[in-house]
Amino acid sequence: MSKEITSRAADYSQWYNDLVLKGGLADYSAVRGCMVIKPYGFALWENMRDALDKMFKDTGHVNAYFPLFIPKSFLSKEAAHVEGFAKECAVVTHYRLKNDPGGAGLVVDPEAKLEEELIVRPTSETIIWNTYKDWIQSHRDLPLLINQWANVVRWEMRTRLFLRTAEFLWQEGHTAHATREEAIIEAEKMLEVYATFAEEFMAVPVIRGVKTASERFAGAEETYCIEAMMQDGKALQAGTSHFLGQNFAKAFDVKFSNRENQLEYVWATSWGVSTRLVGALVMAHSDDSGLILPPRIAPWQVVIVPIYKGEDQKKLIDDKVKAITDELKALGIRVKYDDNDNARPGWKFAEYELKGVPVRLAIGARDLEQGVVEVARRDTKEKNVVKLEGISGYVAQLLEEIQTYMYNKAKAFRDERITPADHWDEFVRLLDEKGGFIAAHWDGTAATEEAIKEKTKATIRCIPLQNTKEEGKCIFSGAPSTQRVLFARAY
Amino acid sequence: MSKEITSRAADYSQWYNDLVLKGGLADYSAVRGCMVIKPYGFALWENMRDALDKMFKDTGHVNAYFPLFIPKSFLSKEAAHVEGFAKECAVVTHYRLKNDPGGAGLVVDPEAKLEEELIVRPTSETIIWNTYKDWIQSHRDLPLLINQWANVVRWEMRTRLFLRTAEFLWQEGHTAHATREEAIIEAEKMLEVYATFAEEFMAVPVIRGVKTASERFAGAEETYCIEAMMQDGKALQAGTSHFLGQNFAKAFDVKFSNRENQLEYVWATSWGVSTRLVGALVMAHSDDSGLILPPRIAPWQVVIVPIYKGEDQKKLIDDKVKAITDELKALGIRVKYDDNDNARPGWKFAEYELKGVPVRLAIGARDLEQGVVEVARRDTKEKNVVKLEGISGYVAQLLEEIQTYMYNKAKAFRDERITPADHWDEFVRLLDEKGGFIAAHWDGTAATEEAIKEKTKATIRCIPLQNTKEEGKCIFSGAPSTQRVLFARAY
Repeated sequence: MSKEITSRAADYSQWYNDLVLKGGLADYSAVRGCMVIKPYGFALWENMRDALDKMFKDTGHVNAYFPLFIPKSFLSKEAAHVEGFAKECAVVTHYRLKNDPGGAGLVVDPEAKLEEELIVRPTSETIIWNTYKDWIQSHRDLPLLINQWANVVRWEMRTRLFLRTAEFLWQEGHTAHATREEAIIEAEKMLEVYATFAEEFMAVPVIRGVKTASERFAGAEETYCIEAMMQDGKALQAGTSHFLGQNFAKAFDVKFSNRENQLEYVWATSWGVSTRLVGALVMAHSDDSGLILPPRIAPWQVVIVPIYKGEDQKKLIDDKVKAITDELKALGIRVKYDDNDNARPGWKFAEYELKGVPVRLAIGARDLEQGVVEVARRDTKEKNVVKLEGISGYVAQLLEEIQTYMYNKAKAFRDERITPADHWDEFVRLLDEKGGFIAAHWDGTAATEEAIKEKTKATIRCIPLQNTKEEGKCIFSGAPSTQRVLFARAY
Repeated sequence: MSKEITSRAADYSQWYNDLVLKGGLADYSAVRGCMVIKPYGFALWENMRDALDKMFKDTGHVNAYFPLFIPKSFLSKEAAHVEGFAKECAVVTHYRLKNDPGGAGLVVDPEAKLEEELIVRPTSETIIWNTYKDWIQSHRDLPLLINQWANVVRWEMRTRLFLRTAEFLWQEGHTAHATREEAIIEAEKMLEVYATFAEEFMAVPVIRGVKTASERFAGAEETYCIEAMMQDGKALQAGTSHFLGQNFAKAFDVKFSNRENQLEYVWATSWGVSTRLVGALVMAHSDDSGLILPPRIAPWQVVIVPIYKGEDQKKLIDDKVKAITDELKALGIRVKYDDNDNARPGWKFAEYELKGVPVRLAIGARDLEQGVVEVARRDTKEKNVVKLEGISGYVAQLLEEIQTYMYNKAKAFRDERITPADHWDEFVRLLDEKGGFIAAHWDGTAATEEAIKEKTKATIRCIPLQNTKEEGKCIFSGAPSTQRVLFARAY
C-alpha cells in the first residue's frame, strides 16, 4: 500500500480515509459496514477508554455487563425508543445452521427458528431497565450508577471508518435515581466528564449544550451533548448524556418505595461515547503529512530512531538509548525504540510522522560524541538539537507543551468559526463559504428546523448551556426568538 | 432475596448458584442462556482481565478488534471448524423491523433480508484469517501477535452461570508465524501464561497437558489445555491454546514470501480464556458461608467495619480509619470502609463473608483506646486482635499469606485426587466414590475413549505434558499403552 496521503485541500474525505487506513488505525472488513480496529488504533482507543473509565469510577460509577441480545418485544415497550431503533437493527431469527440436504451447502436450519426474534443491541436501555426491575425495591437501592463497555450494532446504510459503522465500541452509563433533580444533576455531571475528557485528553474543545426536541435520543426528555469542530468546518457530536425522565421506568414498571414508604417510578439517565471519538480526534488535529496525536492518549509518546553505520556505532547508541528509555519510562512516558534494521531512518521518520507520534528523537554517533540529540515535535514539525543531559525532563515538559499547544490551536480554529448571522442570505453564504457554527435565532419549532435542514443540510447542533438570552427574530421564519442556537453541517 | 446458602453436602450445584447469585457476581437475564454480570462480579473479571492483559503485552502481544459478525460462507471454509460451530450459532438474517400492517406489532421486515446470513462470532479464526490475508505478504510481516477481548455466542442448550452461557466474554489470541516450530513454541508459551495466571492469581493449581484428537478444538492440530479440580471432584478445563498448523492459512489462502522468496502458507495459533474462569474460581475455593476470593484479584482486599454507639465514637473511628485506609491505599491495597448506618455490624460481617473479602477489620471505640483492631481472615476464619501501629504492613503480609495458603490448600486437595487405577472395576469405583483425576492407561483409540465416556461419563481431560512413559495395558481394552492419561468427570 502506498503511504501517500491525499491532501485536505484536494479531497478532505479521502484525506481522512488515507490517515485511518495508512496510519494503521483501522481497516475495512469483509462484513458490510463493520471495520477492523488495527493494533495501533486499538492502543489509542485503550488509552481513551482507560482515561474515561477512571473518570467514571472517580465519580462513583461501577462497571457491569448486560446481554448482547434484546428480545424484540422489549424494544416496543417504549414508544419513542422503538421508532428510533427498529429501522436499523440486526435481527437474530435462528440458532443453528445445517448442511442442506439438497446440496446447497450450509443453510439456516428452519427447525431452529426462535420463538421470539432477538435484536443485537443498538443501545441497552431496555434490557437494563428490565433487569433494574429486579434490583430496585427501595430508596436504599438508589442511586444505581452503572456503566458498561460494549459493542453495539446499528444497521447504517452509509458507513465511514470510526465515524459511522454498523458495529462500534462504546460505553453506556445507565443510572437510576430517586428524584428528578438528582437524575438531571447526574446527566449534567456526565456531560461535564465528557467535555473534560475531550478537552484535556483529546485536546479537542467542545461546546456543551442541549439538543432540540427533534434531535433528542429516542426515549429521552433532554439530551445534553458536546459538539466539536472539524478542520473542514463541519461539526461532530462527540458525546451525549440523556435525562430519560421516568420513561423507561414506566415502560418496564420499575418502582421504588420512597422514604415515606410510597411507591414511585424511578428516574433515569443514560450517557455514551464511542469509537467515533477516534474519528473526531483524527479530523480535529491531523495534517497532510499524517496523524497528529495528543500526548496524553498517543500509544507511543516518543519514538527514538538510531542513525548509525556499523555495529560498533549501533552498540554505543543502543546503550545510551537504553538509559534514556529507562528514564522516560520511569516518568511514565510511553516510548518506542525503533532499531529495526530493515528500514532506513528517513523511512522511519515518515512512518512516525504518518502515525502522529508526538515526539521523535533521532540519535547518531556524532550526536553521542557531542552529547546531544535531535528532538522533533510532530505538531509544529520544529526540530531542536538538545543536550542529552536532562533529556527526559525536557521531553516530559515538551509533551505537556504539545498537549497545550494542540488544544489552543484547535480552540482558536473553532472560536474563529462561531459566526453570528442575522439574515437568511448571510446564513446560507456563511455555511457555504466559511462553514463552522452559525449562531442564529430560531423560532423554536420543529417545522423551521426541518425546513432549514432541507434547504441547507445544516442542523441545530445544540442550544449552548448558559446561553446568553437575547431578543431576536428567527433566521428563517422571522418569528420572535429569545436566544441564538448553533447551526452547522455535521458528521 | 434470602442470603442463606445451600451447603455443598446438601446440593453442590445449588450451592454454586447461591454463591453466584447471592454473592452478587451475576444474575439471570431475560434472554435465554445469557447472564448479567453484576458490578461485583465484573470488578472481579476486570482484575482477572487486567492481569492477563499485562501478561499478554509483556510477551509481545497487542490488542485489536475484529467484527462481531462472520459471513456464513466463512464458516464453511475450514471443514472441521464448521462441524464444530455451525450447530450452535446465532444467525442474523434481517436488518430491520417494521410495524406489521396487519396489526401484529413489531415484525421482521421481509424486505430487509440479508443476501448472506451473518453468524454472531462463536470464535474468530475465520474473520481474522480472512483479514490476515491482507496484512501478511512477507516474512517481515511475521510474527503477527494479536489478541482481542470480545463477547462471543455459542447457542448452548443447557447453560449455567459463568460455566456455560450462550454469550460469554473472553479473550482470543490469534498469531501468525513463519514456521511450524515457532507456532508450536507460541502455543506452548501461552499455555504457560494461562497456567501461571491460574496458579499465581487465581490460586488454582492446574495440570498442563494436551487434548486427545477427539477433544481438540475444531480446526486445530494440537490443543493444549490447563485442567483444574473443583471441590466436588470434577475437573474443569480452564484455558486452551491451539496449534492450528496451516489449516486456516489454507482455508483463507494466506501465504507469505519467505527469506528465499518462495511462497509458503502461514502457521497459526489461537488461545483463549473466558468468564468461565470466574466459575472455576468460585468452585475451587469457596465454602458453605460464601465466596472465598484470592487477594490478588479480589475486588476489595480489605473491608473495614466500624462498631460504635453515637456520633462521637463514630467520629473518632472515622478519623483512625481514614489514616489506615490512606496507608493501605499507598501500599496498593484495595480497601472499602463500610460505614453505612442502615446495617448492623453483624449483618455486614455476614455480607462480606458471603462476598469473600479476604481480610476484614472490625474497629470499635474500646479497640481505639487500646490501640488495637480485630483482624479476621476469610479463608481460615481466624480472628486476631492486632496492634493498630503497623497495621498496614501486617495486612499487606497477611494478604500474601492468604494467597499462598489458598493455593497450597487447593493444591493439596487436587494432589490427593490424582489416583492411579489399573483395573476397570477400580476405575469405575474411584470415579463414583472418590472422584478427581484417575491416571490410567489408554490404548490411544477414539473408540475406547468414546466407550469409556458412554459407560462412566468420564472423559480424558488431558495427556499431561512431560508425562512419564510407562508400559501398561489399556484400562478398558487391555491393549498395550505407553503412558497414563488423566480421566475425570468434568464441567
